[in-house]
Amino acid sequence: MAGKVYLVGAGPGDPGLLTVRAQELLRQAEVVVYDRLAETCLAGNVRPDAELVYVGKQPGQPALSQEAINALLIARAREGKQVVRLKGGDPFLFGRGGEEAEALVAAGIPFEVVPGVTSALAVPAYAGIPVTHRGLSSSVAIITGHEDPSKGETSVRWEHLARAVETLVILMGTENLPAIVERLLQAGRSPDTPAAAIQWGTLPHQRVISAPLARLP
Amino acid sequence: MAGKVYLVGAGPGDPGLLTVRAQELLRQAEVVVYDRLAETCLAGNVRPDAELVYVGKQPGQPALSQEAINALLIARAREGKQVVRLKGGDPFLFGRGGEEAEALVAAGIPFEVVPGVTSALAVPAYAGIPVTHRGLSSSVAIITGHEDPSKGETSVRWEHLARAVETLVILMGTENLPAIVERLLQAGRSPDTPAAAIQWGTLPHQRVISAPLARLP
Repeated sequence: MAGKVYLVGAGPGDPGLLTVRAQELLRQAEVVVYDRLAETCLAGNVRPDAELVYVGKQPGQPALSQEAINALLIARAREGKQVVRLKGGDPFLFGRGGEEAEALVAAGIPFEVVPGVTSALAVPAYAGIPVTHRGLSSSVAIITGHEDPSKGETSVRWEHLARAVETLVILMGTENLPAIVERLLQAGRSPDTPAAAIQWGTLPHQRVISAPLARLP
Repeated sequence: MAGKVYLVGAGPGDPGLLTVRAQELLRQAEVVVYDRLAETCLAGNVRPDAELVYVGKQPGQPALSQEAINALLIARAREGKQVVRLKGGDPFLFGRGGEEAEALVAAGIPFEVVPGVTSALAVPAYAGIPVTHRGLSSSVAIITGHEDPSKGETSVRWEHLARAVETLVILMGTENLPAIVERLLQAGRSPDTPAAAIQWGTLPHQRVISAPLARLP
């Protein structure tokens, strides 16, 4: 049988937010390549003989490089294996699914994409925050907070972004939170804008802090 | 037993994109209140004795009003029923889930939110379009295309929006497509910006048209 790779979104962490199709593919997979946020979805969903490969970050060690992950997916598919690449959230929203798809196309490996529940919407929802709401917000932007906004070469256009949309969802923003808040205030966002910081979203130990933008820790 | 309402995202239409939790709740529900895009997820997933209430648009008839839907959810929960409110996509992204949640809070009805796979990301993914991609796009905004951008009182800030983010996802934009394209060009988006229009996304009869922005039909 020809090998195939499934680029599958695992959702934000709560195993109940795995899709039916993702669960079905996981249960059939001969190889599962997964990262940190996808780990919670493995229990009870993988074959006892499946090869499980963790490619996320580990304390004191760098994560496997994207090139190494691509090479692994290609190698296993060439062995004729059914491979699930399980990624936290949605593979195509800051999930680098596009890069893996490109590598698979270049190698001539058949693949299929299974979108997941994105943490950008599910995490606020679990915290009781609709990202759009009649009379309050009719637009949302999702950006990565991983880039330090105090660096000159930031690609995020804070000036426009602060004025373009009502709801702003910043993923992976913990480290740069003070600088992000500063940039938004400089760009004209009101200090009273309702804001929340959420950690471990959708998981039992989820933490939510709500405050006006200017006082968000 | 006390009644409870589950505000559940059905995903964009493909039943495989229902979440495991949504499927589990659907299978137990005594009442299912659903709209047009959620309809594809019912088959094989509801009890034979479940009350199914369609509240979407019907040809020649208006859809049930939001107030009537709220009243229905509250009434069935007060009868002690387990009610699933199944909404296409994600309930909290242009899904008016927030309004239903408010009505339930006001009525003192217990409820739970189950986020879904949003069509804003899944539909481009099924068409092979990652909404973010290294070196091409590191930000995305999601807006409703339902509002006519040629009207003076549009709440969408096209000027900023066109410059704030790299990827723009416009939901329900078919009717206003020419006016939206015009606004984006006026606001400085390049006529060569890669663009696509997608209809019936994730369903077997999905249609995709790709063209530079200025030539999108």
